[in-house]
Order: sequence, then structure tokens, then C-alpha cells
Amino acid sequence: MSDVRLSLEDVRALALRGLIASGISDANAAVIADVMTSAERDGCKSHGLFRMSGYCAGARSGRVDGKVKPTLHDDAPGVIRVDAHHGFAAPAMAAGRPRLAEKARQQGIAAMPIVDSHHFAALWYDVDALAEDGLVAFAFVNSKSFVAPAGGIDKLYGTNPMAFAWPRVGKPPMIFDQASSASARGEIQIHLRDGKPIPEGWAIDSDGNPTTDPEAGLAGAQLPFGGHKGAAIALMVEMMAVGLTGGKFGFESAADVNTDGGPSEGGQMMIAIDPARFAANGDSGPALRHAETLFEKILEQDGTRLPSDRRYEARKITPTEGITIPQSLHEACLACCE
Amino acid sequence: MSDVRLSLEDVRALALRGLIASGISDANAAVIADVMTSAERDGCKSHGLFRMSGYCAGARSGRVDGKVKPTLHDDAPGVIRVDAHHGFAAPAMAAGRPRLAEKARQQGIAAMPIVDSHHFAALWYDVDALAEDGLVAFAFVNSKSFVAPAGGIDKLYGTNPMAFAWPRVGKPPMIFDQASSASARGEIQIHLRDGKPIPEGWAIDSDGNPTTDPEAGLAGAQLPFGGHKGAAIALMVEMMAVGLTGGKFGFESAADVNTDGGPSEGGQMMIAIDPARFAANGDSGPALRHAETLFEKILEQDGTRLPSDRRYEARKITPTEGITIPQSLHEACLACCE
Repeated sequence: MSDVRLSLEDVRALALRGLIASGISDANAAVIADVMTSAERDGCKSHGLFRMSGYCAGARSGRVDGKVKPTLHDDAPGVIRVDAHHGFAAPAMAAGRPRLAEKARQQGIAAMPIVDSHHFAALWYDVDALAEDGLVAFAFVNSKSFVAPAGGIDKLYGTNPMAFAWPRVGKPPMIFDQASSASARGEIQIHLRDGKPIPEGWAIDSDGNPTTDPEAGLAGAQLPFGGHKGAAIALMVEMMAVGLTGGKFGFESAADVNTDGGPSEGGQMMIAIDPARFAANGDSGPALRHAETLFEKILEQDGTRLPSDRRYEARKITPTEGITIPQSLHEACLACCE
Repeated sequence: MSDVRLSLEDVRALALRGLIASGISDANAAVIADVMTSAERDGCKSHGLFRMSGYCAGARSGRVDGKVKPTLHDDAPGVIRVDAHHGFAAPAMAAGRPRLAEKARQQGIAAMPIVDSHHFAALWYDVDALAEDGLVAFAFVNSKSFVAPAGGIDKLYGTNPMAFAWPRVGKPPMIFDQASSASARGEIQIHLRDGKPIPEGWAIDSDGNPTTDPEAGLAGAQLPFGGHKGAAIALMVEMMAVGLTGGKFGFESAADVNTDGGPSEGGQMMIAIDPARFAANGDSGPALRHAETLFEKILEQDGTRLPSDRRYEARKITPTEGITIPQSLHEACLACCE
């Protein structure tokens, strides 16, 4: 089957049509369509239109409320809580972001727990807008259990990504967004589809033995990146995203019935920091210029790049050349529009 | 040479004597002695009396000001900056900690940048007191360059530890404290001393080739844990500890003359979070009890333990049985007292 070429405007229109046809409100669909369009723009295919069927299925099954409006709760001077009311995370994030930024500027540092939500997006998207606004930002999101704890063999933690963003003057922010697992779950699924063995270190089978068989790895448990240190990061993400928010730990959402392929329920936490409030004279300029000296030192070495640079390379091309998706994915997206 | 057995009171008295004899003020010496005594109590030998010569040498050479009093600066409602005035980090940390805790309770989340300081302690110590006080805490500290960036071969980042602490009711906190490098630098030095090869993945030689030769690894660069994901953590630590505080990046402090074996200058950042301010009714009890369910799930699996559990095991024994140190170390500590 051949690929289908779409402009970014086509991507957004297609996403909007499918989301709205699936019973998601216009306002929520606009936010979610922007998440998918931004992912396609940045060459981040795993979070582009590839996710559309999941969003639509979650809404259609009624497991996720596509129409609900998130509400904001001013719990403390440095805390703005967003209740997603069993909706998708992206509209909750969008609703809370301006207040989070405002609080970070007032207080120096502020946090935004998001409760009762379903996250299905790339985490870099969530910190990107804050960093474009001049703030340093963290995001923590858990998922249902896929990853074994250090020393154990049974899946317990989610793949638990965290993202960190640093603002840059005149340039898009330095952002990393990485799972606490050695690989994305989707990467193992792709190896299974293609009949290829997975690298060692990605997963163990149900008996806890290292495996390069993707099927055995999916049935067993994924491994954290970097051994017990990555497992500690995964645990930290559970505590930040769920311990502090009252959401569901990976093992709790794994116990929920979710047969529609949409996102599971989990917790999220954002932290925003205003670098200007950490400067003696309230000017973030020197700190941001100082940071550039480190970025320069990194890039002086052959073979290096900054996290996100690949996304920014894609971003130079896709607005004019558009993107391609497999015809099968295009058909699946069109089916969502019915 | 035989080992020397000391009670924890002996450790504290010996540390105090050496620090004061090296020109460190009584008040600063009391804080630093507590850091070393706590490390010996918890079986964390690399940060116990093993560090004493370094503290004393840094003060004696005049590179670190052992007598200076840190000052506090209330930069924003959520930010308390501590200026260490070219002193050791531990007294700065101790001076700022009560205000940081107070701000976290008022605002929900607060940050404490520490500037112009020399860190030489275990990072778990810094978050421990905050978590014993019911707060969630992060700590980020950089060191001079030892670690190659992702894709590169020359040392650039420090070993850059981060620590995270979660408070527990009736139990010591869950704390992890881990370098962003695959191994501590001291571990490579111990392999060199013992004439043993280092494991693959710890270091590369000056040409960027993987090496198991500790000498070649020390001359080349250490590797981050978990490949590019650990390198991203190392970069995050540089930005948090230095980018936001105006301290020295690893490559900047590596350029300083430091021949006395004491700590290099770097930056530090602490974040404290009050879980009670993230609960709708201001009661942290449900969140802390919920977290315990995840800890139970971890411990249900054979072969697991919580981060810090080894330290807490040691803590059950050392107050009554004391600790042992090699006679050579004891002699080095006594030499500091002259």
C-alpha cells in the first residue's frame, strides 16, 4: 500500500472531523487536534494521527468523557489543580496552563496537578508552550503497569515519561521527553509486527528471564532504562504524577477494564519555574545566556545534538512539504469520521 | 593493617576536632560533622570520614571559606536563595532549610537555589530532613566535568547527582540519591587501586573507545547511566543546579585550579513540596497512605527493596555497635586534627 501525503492543514482538519464525529466537543477536539498536528509537524509519528483511533474509541465507548469541561481549583498560592472530570488530559492541560504560568511568575515556582484525566499525548507538547513563554518546566505522567521494579520480574510501574524544558531566546526550547522504560511499548509492538527480535535490555519474559522475543517481552515486563537508576526515576514519576494528585498508580489503572484501545486513567503533574525570579535583579537574560554556553560546549563535540533537535529539523520541512502516513492509517482515520 | 572501631559519638568528635583544627568555625564544623556522622551511621562510607581530608584541605588551602556565615535572600514568595559566600554547601543548606520548609507549607511548592558554594556531601542527607518534616523534596547538584554528553566523547557534565524524597508516616522517608553517571568516580578509583578492570559501560578512553581499564577511563570520560536518557538527566541537573542559580557549569569549575582534593565549586537547587497543599481538604494522610500501597506492591516481589532500605538497615546496627574504618583512614583523620 502506498503512503498518503497530507498538508498540516489537512492533518488538523482530518483530526477535527474524526474527533467531533466521535462525540468529542468542538472545544476539546480543537485542543486534541492541535496535539496530533504538532506531533506530525515535528516528525513524532507515534503521537500524531497514529493516536486518532484511540482518542475516538475512548470517547465512543464512553470510557472517557469527550464533552466535559475541566475546572480549575486554586488550592494554594503555588498550586493550581485541574480536575479533568474523566476527560482527556490535553484540554485539562490547556485550561490550566495560563494560570500555572501566572503563578510561576508570581511565586517563582508553581505546580499543576491534573486529576481524573486520560493522557494520550507526547509529553514534550505539554512543556513546550510553557517554555515558549519563558518558563522552565517539568511534566510527569504515569501509565498502567508495564515495567518491572528494580530486582523484580512482574510489571508494576507505567512506562512513566518525564519531560523537562528550558527556554531559549530566539530559538525553540531545549526539551527532553523520555519514558522511564528502556524502550517505548510501541517499539516492541513494531518489532513483533515486523518479525524482528528486540534488543537485549528491553524486556524480560514472564519467568523474569532476559528475552529478545517481542511476544515474550510484551507478556512479561518491560525493563527500566539504565537498571535500578531508571527504575528509581519510574518510581519518582508515580509519586509525582499519582502520589501527589490522588490519581491511579500503574497497577491500579492496569486493573481497570479498557478494551477500546484508548488511554488508561492516570495522574499528571506539571511544575513551572520562572528563571527571572531566581535572578537577583529579576532579569532572566544572564541565566539564559549562561545556559547557551553549555549548549555550545555540547555541540562543539562531533556526534552530539540537543534533545529535541530532531523535532526542530522536521519542523523546518513539514509546513511546506506536508507529511505522509500509511494508507492503512489514513483509512483508519477516515473510519473515525463516520 | 587492621580496622579501627569507633562509636558514632567518636566519629562526631573526631570530625569536629579535625574540622575546627583546619580553621572551620564551630558552627560550620558542627553541621559538617553531622553530615559525616550520619553517613557513617547509614553505612554510606564514601561520604563519611573518607571525606574529612577533603573538607579540611579545602579549608586549609583557603580555597573554601570555612568560617563564613551563609545569608538568606527572600527573592520571591516561593524562592529562598542561600548565598554560601564561598563556603561549604552543608552550612548553607542547614541555614536555608527551615525557610524552605516554611515556604513550601505556605505556597505548596518552593525552591532553594544555593549559590557560591562547595558541595561535598551525600545528597540524600540534604533531602532527608525535609522529608522527615513531611515534605516531598528534590535536590540537584553538579560537579566538575567527568561525563561525556550523548554522542560525544569528551568529559563535559559533572557526575551530577539528583535526590528525591517521599515522606512516610512512622517510617524513615523513601529516598533515592543517584549520580547521572553509570558509576561513581570513586568506584573507578577503587578499581584502579585494586588492579581490577571496570565493567563495560562505565567509561570511554580519550579516543572515545569503550574501555575496561580504570586508568584509561579516568583519563577519558565517564558515561552517563542508561545512555542518552541518563545524559538528558545529567543535562537537566546542570540546568537546575547551575542554569537557574548562576553557579558554575561542570566545564567552568573544571577550569578552576583545585589541587587540594577538596570539593569544587558548583551549583545546587532544592525543591520542597507540601503534599497537604495538594489535597482538597489540606490533609496529606490519604496521599501518604495511598503511596504506601505502591511501596507494598514493590516489596511483594522477591528481590526488591525500596531505595534507602540498605541505609536504614545499617542505621539499626551502628548506634550500638559503632563503625569501623581502615587504620590508614583513621590516621589521615588524626592528621587533620593537628
